[in-house]
Amino acid sequence: MTAQTAGRITDHVAAEDIALQDVLDALVDPVRRSIVRQLADSDRGIPCGAFDISVTRSTSTHHFKVLRRAGIIRQRYEGTVKLNTLRRADLDRAFPGLLDTIIDAARREAEG
Amino acid sequence: MTAQTAGRITDHVAAEDIALQDVLDALVDPVRRSIVRQLADSDRGIPCGAFDISVTRSTSTHHFKVLRRAGIIRQRYEGTVKLNTLRRADLDRAFPGLLDTIIDAARREAEG
Repeated sequence: MTAQTAGRITDHVAAEDIALQDVLDALVDPVRRSIVRQLADSDRGIPCGAFDISVTRSTSTHHFKVLRRAGIIRQRYEGTVKLNTLRRADLDRAFPGLLDTIIDAARREAEG
Repeated sequence: MTAQTAGRITDHVAAEDIALQDVLDALVDPVRRSIVRQLADSDRGIPCGAFDISVTRSTSTHHFKVLRRAGIIRQRYEGTVKLNTLRRADLDRAFPGLLDTIIDAARREAEG
């Protein structure tokens, strides 16, 4: 199922293999938390180039890869555009409430 | 108040200065998550030497310092024994639910 929904991107982690260490390693980075916050605020997939983050393209590609391999985001192509979505259901099954509390904490901190 | 309750240990962060980045930097480490889990399972302070962690004493001292400076634990002396407790109320006020969901996630992962 993973390969089917992911299209050309084949290294998504299976839902049952999502590991807390990988999730925390991913979310300890403020740029990656910002990406996740922006995804949480959107009800549709966001293209990699459309995020409000101040990093180079290659750094951004690295951040998306870390998030994808941790099981936090799913990436799929629509034509030539790579769309990102949060894997909310998979994360909530693995670690209930974790994603939402971290997003909420990041929002609180961003808003001062 | 901080200085008073902390006794001889003077670098506890004030409740209002607890920062998400510091909390996540602290909890991204599995040994520190284990310390926090053990504190969450106890209803009283635990001496530094009484934790079930497989690290040297100097490494352990470092871990406690990171947790203390992040605002996750409070340390106080009782005689010559340094007792550790979780700063649950302060953390819950700063980032509601964050500590509990990470402890819960760590338990789930530890129990496989």
